[in-house]
Amino acid sequence: MFTMDLDLARELSQPNDSKIVLFVMDGLGGLPHEGTGRTELEAADIPHLDRIAKESACGFTVPVAMGVTPGSGPGHLALFGYDPLVFNIGRGALEAVGIDFDLQPSDVAARGNFCTVDGEGRITDRRAGRISSERSAELVAGLRDISLNGAQLFVEPVREHRFVLALRGNGLSEAVADTDPQAEGAPPLAAKATAKEGEATAKLVNDFVEQAQRRLADERPANMLTLRGFAKRPVWPSMADVFKLRPAAIAHYPMYRGLARLVGTQTLDVGPTLEDSIATLREHWGRFDYFFVHYKYTDTAGEDGDFDRKVAKLEEVDAAIDALVHLDPGVLMIGGDHSTPAVMAAHSWHPVPFMLRSRWARADECDSFSETALLQGSLGTLPAKEAMALALAHAGRLKKYGA
Amino acid sequence: MFTMDLDLARELSQPNDSKIVLFVMDGLGGLPHEGTGRTELEAADIPHLDRIAKESACGFTVPVAMGVTPGSGPGHLALFGYDPLVFNIGRGALEAVGIDFDLQPSDVAARGNFCTVDGEGRITDRRAGRISSERSAELVAGLRDISLNGAQLFVEPVREHRFVLALRGNGLSEAVADTDPQAEGAPPLAAKATAKEGEATAKLVNDFVEQAQRRLADERPANMLTLRGFAKRPVWPSMADVFKLRPAAIAHYPMYRGLARLVGTQTLDVGPTLEDSIATLREHWGRFDYFFVHYKYTDTAGEDGDFDRKVAKLEEVDAAIDALVHLDPGVLMIGGDHSTPAVMAAHSWHPVPFMLRSRWARADECDSFSETALLQGSLGTLPAKEAMALALAHAGRLKKYGA
Repeated sequence: MFTMDLDLARELSQPNDSKIVLFVMDGLGGLPHEGTGRTELEAADIPHLDRIAKESACGFTVPVAMGVTPGSGPGHLALFGYDPLVFNIGRGALEAVGIDFDLQPSDVAARGNFCTVDGEGRITDRRAGRISSERSAELVAGLRDISLNGAQLFVEPVREHRFVLALRGNGLSEAVADTDPQAEGAPPLAAKATAKEGEATAKLVNDFVEQAQRRLADERPANMLTLRGFAKRPVWPSMADVFKLRPAAIAHYPMYRGLARLVGTQTLDVGPTLEDSIATLREHWGRFDYFFVHYKYTDTAGEDGDFDRKVAKLEEVDAAIDALVHLDPGVLMIGGDHSTPAVMAAHSWHPVPFMLRSRWARADECDSFSETALLQGSLGTLPAKEAMALALAHAGRLKKYGA
Repeated sequence: MFTMDLDLARELSQPNDSKIVLFVMDGLGGLPHEGTGRTELEAADIPHLDRIAKESACGFTVPVAMGVTPGSGPGHLALFGYDPLVFNIGRGALEAVGIDFDLQPSDVAARGNFCTVDGEGRITDRRAGRISSERSAELVAGLRDISLNGAQLFVEPVREHRFVLALRGNGLSEAVADTDPQAEGAPPLAAKATAKEGEATAKLVNDFVEQAQRRLADERPANMLTLRGFAKRPVWPSMADVFKLRPAAIAHYPMYRGLARLVGTQTLDVGPTLEDSIATLREHWGRFDYFFVHYKYTDTAGEDGDFDRKVAKLEEVDAAIDALVHLDPGVLMIGGDHSTPAVMAAHSWHPVPFMLRSRWARADECDSFSETALLQGSLGTLPAKEAMALALAHAGRLKKYGA
């Protein structure tokens, strides 16, 4: 073990009155454009971020492990200081937490898909033609008054054909296999317990599916549903407990608020722009000492494969970022939860640009914020989960280890 | 696991007639001076160290983990090849070992402080005004003939208000809580067992404290004592066993001799200067094949916040270092146990400059021994505990792993 784990963090961390800001540009890292040979960061005109790089210790973070492409969950948990290979959350619970649903530790949640089945009940379209979010919400509304013997149920729309099913009651278990056969041409599976303790929950799920099937039978194209990723909300140590921080999350999208809440972070209401985020940050500056600020649109552009829009979003951040710097946090970290190169139009495993600005940071020769320049950084390529240890150290919040 | 652990080292290591020298400049790493923007190493005129850097594989070591500031114990154990998160030593034992006290594995030692209490027995000064070492030695002498029923006791002065209490007998346990309440205004606590096996030892400790209190009652300002960090001396595998080395320690300060003895290193008597150390090294060159040479004054200057003195000490080392190089060890490592930036006047977590000179080292573009130049090094930033594996490899002392 080389990285500080949570037990060591709990032993060494101490409160003080410093401020730590983690600014996450979702999907930050990129790859060169085939025409110009420059990455999104290299193509962007970002003088303020370049200047911050000059003042910072620079490098890259690896969210999970070399070569591993992370989802949003692991990407963020790592930056919060939680090893994403240890702190793993089931898909159903993540989906519930990600729509601001108040999932209780004893609830079991599953990710649901509306789908299309033929006359023999075989799946012909696993996503029911990606029905609109509006249509999906109508279908969800029609399932809410299903009544189960022994559990309360919640059905919540997510987006397009996706929804969340949550069961609340005594003795519920996540030991239930998916009903989604992950293939077309096969019928949805009956819910089966994967262990003895899942049997009662599987029975409840099958009861739900049978009632839902009757209600959906005459709908088109979504006339059936599948469920997968049965999971409880994990109970994890809080950042307050482990790191002695009073943490706040400034994120417009519910998924990121949900992730932050899993580690005991208070979420603040905020508008969609970075200016909104910084205004919220300023407003609550005195109440907290760790702020996670999330910016979504770099990732959206990357996922859309829109190189130029990702460049434009980076420039948008650059125009706003000085207002954040002017708050003068003791430690300012700027990075991403993963790379989303526009040329791949998807999350990737590539190390993510990262810089840490602090009075005690050993600044380096890195003079701009780009994948090439950051190779000159003093931080090298480090596990993203080490960012928190560095932040605490630079904030004077870690006691000496050993005499 | 990426780092060679002790089991693998035991399996792969083999003796030969090569020499390895680890030269530790205590608290080596620094941070830029606010006026000049240059670190201590960058401000120092160190042509010999710069030349060695040109001939070496260069980089940085991280003593414990990213962001973690080490004490002297973990910082050195890591360089000796022992994971400091696994090989942890309690404060009392480290304090005893650090004054050359011959602590036996069955002894229990505690770090003692003389303190001042008021008429109600409440602590008014936890360090008794940092009484002089001479005065402390007198007080210690007055406690030595305290007699306990069931254990022999040793009281040894350390420095200023600090001393060591060691108990020797059958069935002693380190499961005893501190008597130091870590706050003024509260009386010292009675020693309490933290587990059943600590009860007899706690009783002995309380008996000692009661007798000591009566003897100190009329003294001023030190009229009471506190004890903390009850610990036994750990029994660890020796460097001879694990690495097939015949190791010697050349350290003037008892703390570093004590640490080296914990891993089975023979300690050699030596004067205070680096010239003294090199003379001792030369004298014993044929008898050992691993030499740990310790230089203290870089750390002392750093801890005092004296930038210029730290620079001067680096130049002092530089003037003497060629005599060491001329012994032409098969592997010469030059590094530090941790950083002590003068601008922080304290140990810090920053990676520590490191270079390894050997016929088989892959020299790099790094042309001077400084925090900035070393970023060009081929070793990057590595856990300090990996230095030993590199040394053994370059000395031809590691067999091939696997066929």
